[in-house]
Amino acid sequence: MEAPRPRPGRLLLVPTPLAELGDVALTEVLPQATLETAAALDHWIVENARTARAVLGAIGRHVPLRTALQQQVLSVLPKHGELDMEAARALLQAALDGTDVGLMSDAGAPCVADPGARVVAAAHALDIPVVPLVGPSSILLALMASGLEGQRFAFHGYLPVEPRAREQRIRELERDSAHHHQTQLCIETPYRNAVLLKALAETLHPETRISVACALTAPQAFIRTLPAEQWRTQLDQLPSKVPAMFGFLAR
Amino acid sequence: MEAPRPRPGRLLLVPTPLAELGDVALTEVLPQATLETAAALDHWIVENARTARAVLGAIGRHVPLRTALQQQVLSVLPKHGELDMEAARALLQAALDGTDVGLMSDAGAPCVADPGARVVAAAHALDIPVVPLVGPSSILLALMASGLEGQRFAFHGYLPVEPRAREQRIRELERDSAHHHQTQLCIETPYRNAVLLKALAETLHPETRISVACALTAPQAFIRTLPAEQWRTQLDQLPSKVPAMFGFLAR
Repeated sequence: MEAPRPRPGRLLLVPTPLAELGDVALTEVLPQATLETAAALDHWIVENARTARAVLGAIGRHVPLRTALQQQVLSVLPKHGELDMEAARALLQAALDGTDVGLMSDAGAPCVADPGARVVAAAHALDIPVVPLVGPSSILLALMASGLEGQRFAFHGYLPVEPRAREQRIRELERDSAHHHQTQLCIETPYRNAVLLKALAETLHPETRISVACALTAPQAFIRTLPAEQWRTQLDQLPSKVPAMFGFLAR
Repeated sequence: MEAPRPRPGRLLLVPTPLAELGDVALTEVLPQATLETAAALDHWIVENARTARAVLGAIGRHVPLRTALQQQVLSVLPKHGELDMEAARALLQAALDGTDVGLMSDAGAPCVADPGARVVAAAHALDIPVVPLVGPSSILLALMASGLEGQRFAFHGYLPVEPRAREQRIRELERDSAHHHQTQLCIETPYRNAVLLKALAETLHPETRISVACALTAPQAFIRTLPAEQWRTQLDQLPSKVPAMFGFLAR
């Protein structure tokens, strides 16, 4: 006789702070229920083991961890290349065996602008219940704070780095923005933020509003929305070397 | 001599629960800092006064309100038609006079899928600092839980109601989804959820994955992602009369 398959555990999607742990208290950005749920887990799939341990340590200072940090099982998502469905299923073995498993991104909401979605797709295929928990997302906070259209918007990730390809993509996104009255959002690696803002300010129509949101949820947060032509004369206002989200809306 | 202009107050963007207050504890979906910040305010711009008073009452049961609910000043966003910039500025008068003002949506994150963005745009134009606070967003939670592409996605609001226009729009969005490997998200009023899911399941390519997320954050949350062809035979699984978010990703 075959043993009955155990009732699967759940896959809990646990957001983490956007800002450095020294700059922001966990209670500023995570609901008590997210902290308590995370503190009860002992199996994790994480983007970055070091960040995950630091976050779990910080959570433990608010809500005692049910399992000591050293005893927790952390599996790391492959950093580069595609995570194929077989590898994603292997990561979920503990859930198939009946244990709740947490999924934690490097910063912010898991599966948004990170490679975690493959794990969630595998969970759906395996009938593992998926539970998204509330926490900070730089995309959502930047959109809220932008004053740009929030009823239709798109996040495009990174734009091309090569100047002509980038300019062409910006023009294409501006045409779509005007056509659908849609806010366009994108990111850049911090050391190229100034280059991207200059390209946006100089390529977009002078009246197209551009919003920049840096260091969201941190004390030094910087959020500003101005028409492209006004950004052109104050590009030096952009804080350097901090994570930034860029948005724009054509008139 | 002219009196110096006071230092303006801030505009705080305060998210509210997605689920009924009886179904979900505030601490499940709002960080302590969001509760404390909201409890300290006495001027509000709100989408719905009744909801706002209920949420403030619930917040007061966790963190004492600095100003009694009856003494708080609630200005209601015009429900229909465009909120023009002059009207938005008028709503912000208290902030111009130096008082912090909260902006609260009917459910979820303000300025996302609601008319609040005009108020934030006016705040930027008036140099009123804008502070987005962390809370639940059905768009973000649905995207996280979908297992669909989270590195490129778009929210389109409502699709056309007329069947042929809706079908045409679904095909157009599927082409764009395939071209940009972009998740497409949309909503519908609860009583038309079944009609929209049927249209998506029958119009999209059989292998295009469709995700449905209903009653997010509530105990009866329903989250399922299946290829269109599998949805066709289980349309009756969709819970009725609950808020739902729909997503799909072409192969």
